[in-house]
Amino acid sequence: MIDKSELRRDIVNGDWVLVATGRRRRPQQFAKPAADKPTSKKDCPFENPQKDGNGPAFLWYTKSSEGSGEPPSGWVLQVIKNKFPAVLHHSGRTCPVPIRDGIYEKMIGIGFHEVLVTRSHTKFLADSSNQEIEYVVRAYRDRILAHKAEKCLEYIFIFHNHGRAAGASVWHSHSQIIALPIIPPDVRRSLAGAKLYWLDTKKCVHCEVVKREKIKKERIIYQNKKFIVLAPFASHTAFEVRIFPLEHQSSFEDIDQESCKYFADALGTILKKIKRALKNPAYNFFIHTAPIVDGDYSYYHWHLEILPKTSTFAGVELGTGIEVLAISPEEAASYLRKIK
Amino acid sequence: MIDKSELRRDIVNGDWVLVATGRRRRPQQFAKPAADKPTSKKDCPFENPQKDGNGPAFLWYTKSSEGSGEPPSGWVLQVIKNKFPAVLHHSGRTCPVPIRDGIYEKMIGIGFHEVLVTRSHTKFLADSSNQEIEYVVRAYRDRILAHKAEKCLEYIFIFHNHGRAAGASVWHSHSQIIALPIIPPDVRRSLAGAKLYWLDTKKCVHCEVVKREKIKKERIIYQNKKFIVLAPFASHTAFEVRIFPLEHQSSFEDIDQESCKYFADALGTILKKIKRALKNPAYNFFIHTAPIVDGDYSYYHWHLEILPKTSTFAGVELGTGIEVLAISPEEAASYLRKIK
Repeated sequence: MIDKSELRRDIVNGDWVLVATGRRRRPQQFAKPAADKPTSKKDCPFENPQKDGNGPAFLWYTKSSEGSGEPPSGWVLQVIKNKFPAVLHHSGRTCPVPIRDGIYEKMIGIGFHEVLVTRSHTKFLADSSNQEIEYVVRAYRDRILAHKAEKCLEYIFIFHNHGRAAGASVWHSHSQIIALPIIPPDVRRSLAGAKLYWLDTKKCVHCEVVKREKIKKERIIYQNKKFIVLAPFASHTAFEVRIFPLEHQSSFEDIDQESCKYFADALGTILKKIKRALKNPAYNFFIHTAPIVDGDYSYYHWHLEILPKTSTFAGVELGTGIEVLAISPEEAASYLRKIK
Repeated sequence: MIDKSELRRDIVNGDWVLVATGRRRRPQQFAKPAADKPTSKKDCPFENPQKDGNGPAFLWYTKSSEGSGEPPSGWVLQVIKNKFPAVLHHSGRTCPVPIRDGIYEKMIGIGFHEVLVTRSHTKFLADSSNQEIEYVVRAYRDRILAHKAEKCLEYIFIFHNHGRAAGASVWHSHSQIIALPIIPPDVRRSLAGAKLYWLDTKKCVHCEVVKREKIKKERIIYQNKKFIVLAPFASHTAFEVRIFPLEHQSSFEDIDQESCKYFADALGTILKKIKRALKNPAYNFFIHTAPIVDGDYSYYHWHLEILPKTSTFAGVELGTGIEVLAISPEEAASYLRKIK
């Protein structure tokens, strides 16, 4: 449990940070490096989440059915509460508002923080079939749809950490879903940039990117009927990859059944390529999609970003916000394109 | 040598990234993890930089003199060209301008990328005397003053990576100085926020922060006659620390001789506390100061930020820009304050 989850606004740049002091770590424990070895099945908190005190599932799938509560033994995927949430689970009372603390501003960090667990202890997403990845994609969508019905929430952030070096604290493959009472800083900047482009040109910036990349071809890694996989022109890390729906769509949760299949194919294909090309690197991926709070986000175009961990953020990146790429996006795309 | 250094602008959020493909790494080499052990004195590129092909020093100090070129044997510090620069060294010809590449924008990455090396192979900044740290502080100032005379440059970024986990690629203690033809994205946001606060209130936001913190006291870690050391209200990492000059000053290079002494005391004191408190963690520090390109930056207040590496940036931080702190700035400050 967490004692406290507090959003605090940076007085200079306006960005929010989240103070979630729930893990009860004492200051000196920050000195200890994290262990870096696979967890045995026996000690895995996700092998039998309900036995391990994770509570009922918000959602479970079997191969032929779905539901919530106690999952049947044939579950292939379940979504449970994160035992170490970054936000206090929202109880449906009044919505928090920013309050003043002298010259500063803060707000209670309410929302939901969930973990999406797939069945196998040893099979990561890159080892999974398209069908298995499709379950994950569908569950991402279903959880956003469920949170959309809640009050006080503004944004649902979906992400996946693979490997210790990418911050995964549990070995067993899992994704996370955080429902937040604010629009996060980076999403706000992405929305603002897309809106400005739309106001200037009456065009979707991401549609324009896709159009340009289809002409140039040098940064395309993979493409199917519905999705395109690219190394962005101004990549933020070496081997950064983005997946865009070819057809303009603002909100990820509007994805239809057929598109789920093609999205699973695109995601599975690129994760397999990255695994082979970079020898099973750690990586993070996340979805940038329109907020769920009221507003017109029709100018936005959702996408998924994958950031393989091939280097360490150092002083330059942390202090300037400029990432230094030691491989060009064109070389990275060419290499990944050729990998089977 | 680098083949290419190209600034590319993110079409959505407007941020610059830097494609510096000089290290001639082949794509598959990104799969190899970096070695993680101390380099012997014999193999250290900074033990005798001139013998190791680093070229003459842009600046050297002995205990009683200073100069440039071949340093005398009694050197305590020297500044040399980075062998693997992120920018192409500027040759004083015409200044680059952003050019279009279809819908995108890019610019040649010219500037300077230097390394500041201190004499001892085994002594890190946290092990150094105030006098030794004062040399480093003075050299930071002197290099900014030297670059200010160059054309085409907009910002001088000074940073220090300590330990592999913080991205240091050479064991021997060193800082880096990058002169850039742009104002970096994070600095731009910091400037914009400070300017907005000043326009709204006619006050310096950082002076207001210092004033507030001196009343509340709970986030102050250390203070001397000229500098205050704080855990920021909205820290961006656990145990983040900032050092502010008590008196309003926009540009770091305006620091006077006496203030150099007090700044060295503040920096040395907090680095020693962090080393003891967190068992010699990796960390990054950097200076945020006013740009050198023409403009009125009198609203800005320079400072130094220290980010100890106690956790890994994962999907949340990378995808939202929200950092999740597992210890509050007040607890971190209290802990560091008590450490001798």
